[in-house]
Amino acid sequence: MNAIFNRRSIRKYTKQVISEETIEKLLRAGMAAPSAANEQPWHFIVIKDKEILSAIPKFHPYAQMLREADCAIVVCGDLVLETNKNFWTQDCSAATENILIEATDLGLGSVWIGVHPDQDRVKPLHALLGLPQTVIPLCIISLGYPTEIKAPVDRFNPSRIHRDRW
Amino acid sequence: MNAIFNRRSIRKYTKQVISEETIEKLLRAGMAAPSAANEQPWHFIVIKDKEILSAIPKFHPYAQMLREADCAIVVCGDLVLETNKNFWTQDCSAATENILIEATDLGLGSVWIGVHPDQDRVKPLHALLGLPQTVIPLCIISLGYPTEIKAPVDRFNPSRIHRDRW
Repeated sequence: MNAIFNRRSIRKYTKQVISEETIEKLLRAGMAAPSAANEQPWHFIVIKDKEILSAIPKFHPYAQMLREADCAIVVCGDLVLETNKNFWTQDCSAATENILIEATDLGLGSVWIGVHPDQDRVKPLHALLGLPQTVIPLCIISLGYPTEIKAPVDRFNPSRIHRDRW
Repeated sequence: MNAIFNRRSIRKYTKQVISEETIEKLLRAGMAAPSAANEQPWHFIVIKDKEILSAIPKFHPYAQMLREADCAIVVCGDLVLETNKNFWTQDCSAATENILIEATDLGLGSVWIGVHPDQDRVKPLHALLGLPQTVIPLCIISLGYPTEIKAPVDRFNPSRIHRDRW
């Protein structure tokens, strides 16, 4: 599965616009993720507004690339939709990874920008997007067509593999 | 990316053995995942031992399929390896999702069996596998060649998509 291995964090983008059709493919990939008891506790905020994109780096130290990104998707968990308590971050992480892989497969560059549980990031993002109390932003996915191709990195580390027990 | 959309939870398996080459492909996919500041805080316990596989359903209510599975991979986070505190569950969830997608692509059936943060599952699994204090099992991936093909499910839900803000 090439896209799994070719995915890299891409922070520099061209000015090419991402089509609505492509954004829908990304969201479909996110929603195809597994979730605890199939609860699907997610919401996706698709940000194209340049003012909102540029506001995020003012409080998030690792979000500077959003000033150049064509689009961002904020993946959120909804505590009301969560039937198996305390599994929403795993569900939403699986959805995020699906979006990153699909983005790679579609020729897009992307970065997973961590938000939850760092409250210095959660609170201002929550306010900026006008989220309901029960909806928590897990992360931001920065998206754009890449200006450069990064070669795949081999992270395989046999010392992290154990057989039958530790 | 077909494997993202074709992935289903598969709980019934043939007796076909999963080769070491295939297991290495799954682990390579897991380790290709993104992680906070590229910390890669994961360990993978590959369980082939039938006694250990059969011991897990004695304390985990949703792990009965492990009695028939050829193999399981327990994805663990290592708090010592975690440089960005409290992001390890997201990193290990991304690694888990990569393994599930790669498994689908290789013709395997799989299930994500939730463990952390349910302490009634974490503690007995931790003891069974002899894990160090700082290593926490996030989930178990059950693996085997499927006895049936489940059709893809369309989980696309436009009501979960928001534009620019809530």
